[in-house]
Amino acid sequence: MSFWKSIFNSSPSASTVIPLESPSQSSPTEADQRNGTSERRIVFSKDRALDLYELEELCDAVGWSRRPLRKVRKAIQHSFLVMSMWEERGTSRRLIGFSRATSDHAFNATIWDVVVHPKFQGRGLGKALMQQMIRELRREDISNITLFADPHVVSFYSELGFTPDPEGIKGMFWYPNAK
Amino acid sequence: MSFWKSIFNSSPSASTVIPLESPSQSSPTEADQRNGTSERRIVFSKDRALDLYELEELCDAVGWSRRPLRKVRKAIQHSFLVMSMWEERGTSRRLIGFSRATSDHAFNATIWDVVVHPKFQGRGLGKALMQQMIRELRREDISNITLFADPHVVSFYSELGFTPDPEGIKGMFWYPNAK
Repeated sequence: MSFWKSIFNSSPSASTVIPLESPSQSSPTEADQRNGTSERRIVFSKDRALDLYELEELCDAVGWSRRPLRKVRKAIQHSFLVMSMWEERGTSRRLIGFSRATSDHAFNATIWDVVVHPKFQGRGLGKALMQQMIRELRREDISNITLFADPHVVSFYSELGFTPDPEGIKGMFWYPNAK
Repeated sequence: MSFWKSIFNSSPSASTVIPLESPSQSSPTEADQRNGTSERRIVFSKDRALDLYELEELCDAVGWSRRPLRKVRKAIQHSFLVMSMWEERGTSRRLIGFSRATSDHAFNATIWDVVVHPKFQGRGLGKALMQQMIRELRREDISNITLFADPHVVSFYSELGFTPDPEGIKGMFWYPNAK
């Protein structure tokens, strides 16, 4: 797990970073000294000025259907929170994760489009990305954080504190041809 | 059901109206002539300049917990779609239903706070309100319309074309104290 030890905030204005499966939380300076500046680091950013082609590549990597970039741009613009996850090495950075949430800015938020690059899965990064989302939404005083989970990720979200069908509440989707 | 026959659009700029369980769809003029101008009518509006105290009264009537009006105002401001339903008689109008949706303006919308005054329930007005919501969201090219339904209204939404847990997708809620 030494790969993920050198995690710190390299761009404080737009980014926040959380430690990942590190036994002790090191300050950026300590981590920097221990690992050197050319080490790989994971950085989270709320800045929505993303390269949409890079995002499309990430979504391609997990096999999602392509969506018109015009609509993707609009969706990002009108999301309450957009979180991207980057692998940084020296001055280069690579988009390895993404998530966003719609919200009424007051009570409810719904998380959509959670994606982690396959090469970076299985290392707690999806969990870290979601914890970052929850932290930001809570910081904005959103009390009701919701999502719609595919069957194979229900246990993943359960471990993060999400409950399926609480008190029998059902997630429902409208289909144009259903009625 | 003659009570609900005289439904027409009295305020075209801000409102739209749909016929409610009327065997034949009449034009506003025909309905007006048949029923007279002092008849009760149901009007739908997307105008979000609501009296928040009137909305609170409506929510009180169905037993919802009170919420700070400051946050309710913010939530309405940041909702993609806000739909109110009114009973109009002559020049007076009364708020009898409400619903709103958050959205990314591109792909997804989530419907919240669907309420119909108890005195007006059981007449197809909740259905009409939801159909109006769906129509508007579809008009805005939103393909994924979602909601979270309490157990006792799952069948109501099913009849409108909503499917619970499609392909095993689970609605999930995050609880601060769960983890």
